[in-house]
Amino acid sequence: MSNAKGYAAHSNTSGLAPFSFDRREPRPDDVSIEIDYCGVCHTDIHFVQNDWGVTNYPVVPGHEIIGRVTAVGSDVTGFKVGDVVGVGCMVDSCRSCSACEAGLEQYCLEGMTSTYNDEDRHDHSVTYGGYSDKVVVSERFVVKVPEKLDPSSAAPILCAGITTYSPLRHYGVKAGHKVGVIGMGGLGHMGVKFAKALGAEVTIFTRSESKVAEAKKQGADHVVISTDEEQMAAAAEHYDFMLDTVPVQHDLNPYLNCLKFDGIHIIVGLLEPVDPALEAGNLVFKRRVLAGSLIGGMPETQEVLDFCAEHDITCDVEMLDIQNINGAYERMKKGDVKYRFVIDMQSLKAN
Amino acid sequence: MSNAKGYAAHSNTSGLAPFSFDRREPRPDDVSIEIDYCGVCHTDIHFVQNDWGVTNYPVVPGHEIIGRVTAVGSDVTGFKVGDVVGVGCMVDSCRSCSACEAGLEQYCLEGMTSTYNDEDRHDHSVTYGGYSDKVVVSERFVVKVPEKLDPSSAAPILCAGITTYSPLRHYGVKAGHKVGVIGMGGLGHMGVKFAKALGAEVTIFTRSESKVAEAKKQGADHVVISTDEEQMAAAAEHYDFMLDTVPVQHDLNPYLNCLKFDGIHIIVGLLEPVDPALEAGNLVFKRRVLAGSLIGGMPETQEVLDFCAEHDITCDVEMLDIQNINGAYERMKKGDVKYRFVIDMQSLKAN
Repeated sequence: MSNAKGYAAHSNTSGLAPFSFDRREPRPDDVSIEIDYCGVCHTDIHFVQNDWGVTNYPVVPGHEIIGRVTAVGSDVTGFKVGDVVGVGCMVDSCRSCSACEAGLEQYCLEGMTSTYNDEDRHDHSVTYGGYSDKVVVSERFVVKVPEKLDPSSAAPILCAGITTYSPLRHYGVKAGHKVGVIGMGGLGHMGVKFAKALGAEVTIFTRSESKVAEAKKQGADHVVISTDEEQMAAAAEHYDFMLDTVPVQHDLNPYLNCLKFDGIHIIVGLLEPVDPALEAGNLVFKRRVLAGSLIGGMPETQEVLDFCAEHDITCDVEMLDIQNINGAYERMKKGDVKYRFVIDMQSLKAN
Repeated sequence: MSNAKGYAAHSNTSGLAPFSFDRREPRPDDVSIEIDYCGVCHTDIHFVQNDWGVTNYPVVPGHEIIGRVTAVGSDVTGFKVGDVVGVGCMVDSCRSCSACEAGLEQYCLEGMTSTYNDEDRHDHSVTYGGYSDKVVVSERFVVKVPEKLDPSSAAPILCAGITTYSPLRHYGVKAGHKVGVIGMGGLGHMGVKFAKALGAEVTIFTRSESKVAEAKKQGADHVVISTDEEQMAAAAEHYDFMLDTVPVQHDLNPYLNCLKFDGIHIIVGLLEPVDPALEAGNLVFKRRVLAGSLIGGMPETQEVLDFCAEHDITCDVEMLDIQNINGAYERMKKGDVKYRFVIDMQSLKAN
């Protein structure tokens, strides 16, 4: 065991505070990582607040981890000391089911092991996330950060990035396709960049007129103000895909109506009952599809990093000292960040 | 114009009664058909009762039409007098949009012309359906009934059949797949036959223990009683496809939970808001898909008839004299038909 420093929440009202804990002794397939950067995801807030009722305190959040390899186990073949690497939302899975064999570990039939607030499959210890100085992760769940990528802005690719990249690739978005991206936060702004890089014509759907200039700056070809009935009517039956990144309940029907026949509406958030109710006719009459998607598998997580390097795609980030994390959460709740906070883990040394 | 006899509803409380009306003079691309049989679809009841608020009375229902060609227009190349032919749910479309060009006329960007209760695109006359002695339909919307098929039991293939066949083919159901069929009415029992003929392992989901023997007789490999929580739990994450033929509101979530990751739930009915609410997590956490499908295009409607001939598939029907149509509707409302009423149009001559 080795002592680690980090920030943890101890209750749903405590906020985050310094925390000392043990990381396990590395196993033969493990990579030991010193963490340089960790992105801040809305999911972190949900776990800190126990919004989903499944938090085991103390919880150390963080699943957009970038760091450097400090040691490798005897069975590790893909990494060496000094490599710049990433760890995303999962750190283990059964590794042998049909999903794992397909490189879709996030759909592991036995359930993936999450990077934090989960239980290690081998020693049953609690998993702690990336708001920390170091982490030990099995090689299979570690990815290489291409030299061309700035490590700090690469961190959010490991969740916000892969979550939007994976469904666009799975459904074969390419030149000639018209893609609508709903919402322009951490996920949405990455979705726009990926869809553009894949060759699609991209429209951002936003409720706010004030975001039009910013949407264009992000590379969107068009902007539709979703609260404007005329603009929505003009967008009817126009899109091959809608990438819906809105993380709260909203009416899917007006967006489904914007899809062509055979169009696909992809939801990557909205982990709640669909309300207002889905109109079945919006699917049936045009053979449309409502599809879900969850992060991405490990091969695809490597792929998205390589894709970002190749296409000069980075996440727009605001750097943060970990001492300011509670204030950052308050700003995120108001949507006041463009578009992702990333903790500079050097700041932890000041504690 | 030529005088036709049929049965029409004159109001939402009138029931169906004898009705005389005019069929149009055949146009050069038209096939004139003497109707021998017409299947009775639940949709007919909805239109007679004006359940959807769009009925224009008098309405002559019927969109599962089998008959013989009595004349062909000068431009008709695919049919000759005496051919046994079928007409399904649509009789026209724009014929030039991307959907029509793909042979998916049911998704015509300008809207298909329905076989009844619609407006002819050329002369703006009302379309009247198959509860009638004859009909005039453009060649493109007429299909050939293979000699091997019994014309009377072939009628329901034109709606109940194509509606279930089309999505099974579209999504590539084949040997090795596990398919669940929800509901065992006119559509469901055809879905079982098609899925079996395509090589899949088929399970019928039914609420009623009393239908188990019948489900097995229809060729189902397994039956799951959907009201039995233990059976539903055992079916979790088991199926590649669910073909949902239930025409009324029901909870989709327990069935979604029966799908493997990447599984597809196909709805062909339920043209109402989804209630209880769809749980988005049931899609996201397993990359599942909720898909709609509407009848089938004309090439596929010919294909399903040929497929039925090749695989000795017929619809289970109960023959009906048209004078008994109102009583048949009452029985259908109680689910008291195995599995489709077909009107023997010879009976019309007794009036």
